[in-house]
Amino acid sequence: MSGLPESLAGKTIAVLGGTGPQGRGLARRFADAGLAVVIGSRSADRAAEAAATLVEAVGGTVTGADNAGAAAAGDIVVVAVPWDGHGELLASLKDALAGKVVVDCVNPLGFDKQGAYALPVEEGSAAQQAQAILADATVVGAFHNVSAVLLEDPEVASVDTDVLVLGDVREATDLVQDLCGVIPGVRGVYGGRLRNAHQVEALTANLISVNRRYKAHAGIRVTDV
Amino acid sequence: MSGLPESLAGKTIAVLGGTGPQGRGLARRFADAGLAVVIGSRSADRAAEAAATLVEAVGGTVTGADNAGAAAAGDIVVVAVPWDGHGELLASLKDALAGKVVVDCVNPLGFDKQGAYALPVEEGSAAQQAQAILADATVVGAFHNVSAVLLEDPEVASVDTDVLVLGDVREATDLVQDLCGVIPGVRGVYGGRLRNAHQVEALTANLISVNRRYKAHAGIRVTDV
Repeated sequence: MSGLPESLAGKTIAVLGGTGPQGRGLARRFADAGLAVVIGSRSADRAAEAAATLVEAVGGTVTGADNAGAAAAGDIVVVAVPWDGHGELLASLKDALAGKVVVDCVNPLGFDKQGAYALPVEEGSAAQQAQAILADATVVGAFHNVSAVLLEDPEVASVDTDVLVLGDVREATDLVQDLCGVIPGVRGVYGGRLRNAHQVEALTANLISVNRRYKAHAGIRVTDV
Repeated sequence: MSGLPESLAGKTIAVLGGTGPQGRGLARRFADAGLAVVIGSRSADRAAEAAATLVEAVGGTVTGADNAGAAAAGDIVVVAVPWDGHGELLASLKDALAGKVVVDCVNPLGFDKQGAYALPVEEGSAAQQAQAILADATVVGAFHNVSAVLLEDPEVASVDTDVLVLGDVREATDLVQDLCGVIPGVRGVYGGRLRNAHQVEALTANLISVNRRYKAHAGIRVTDV
């Protein structure tokens, strides 16, 4: 496929937790854009199955592996796993992720009858926890607020949202902004340093409230940019 | 003036901290929409001065008072004071604010060389602190992310942003959504309960980062709503 930015040419994107809704949706859009994708999962079998489904749906180069295999295979590694177990998984992949750009999409949220709410995180945010664990990787926060429903829906040609990209290393945030831009309709907007990731992760709770009230799949656009 | 929603007809809006940039900007837009406005400040003299300046600029019914006088005079009371002293001020106005809708716009932020960052708040957020102190008022969070520069600029005919409105009482959030809508370009969108106010307050730190990077006056729009 054509149209990939130079920064992403020949790059393989691993998606850890690639069998969950958010991971599946991102993997689908990355593959559809012509990027090589490795879906990671706790179960290599389920990952291979999800990869096969994706190839059938959108074509491209998609393979499956367990999370460790995917982490090793990816040039850029997207972390789309549940918050529960996030730290333990990353600690187990520390060596495989050294030197790589790791894109953390994880939203530490709790749910009760009144909906979703932000969970406290000792390190400040999931992204900061990832960076604390992965001292030799460059962690970038992104894709927190993108509707998995829209990402996965083949009828949705364009996903109407900006993605706030958070990180402390310009080269890495620029790269991840490029990665956002391969999804039709999506624009990566630099949104500040990792220390300001918590509120972007937590904002997903607000969007869940918006979705309930308005029966929507809400996203956000940054105006005047 | 015409065009005010019925819910706001005849209502007086008090703006505590109405001599600061955010308060001045909101007061200006409310007055311009035809609402009666009382500007509150620690100094009644400075409030009266700001009110006179506003009347000269946009006309309408704008008066000034100390914060206690403004709190007593307003049907809806907007709190746009600095975070430092927020709790003490509200505690001193507890009786005057009983039974009223109090709109908290305050962003608990710190600043250093790397820009803005969210401050921890014992009650969770400024809005929750306000509600904890003002047990007999109905606190709604709103206007956190609106650029004071755009609000104050007479050349800006339309302020291109949504306002997330947070609260636990539907009647009050509906009213404040109506209040948002009197500002040209602005739409009030229900954004969840008060327990999810922190991240909306803190998101202002991200928008400050956006403004630095892109030389913008960023706001947000909620998509699919």
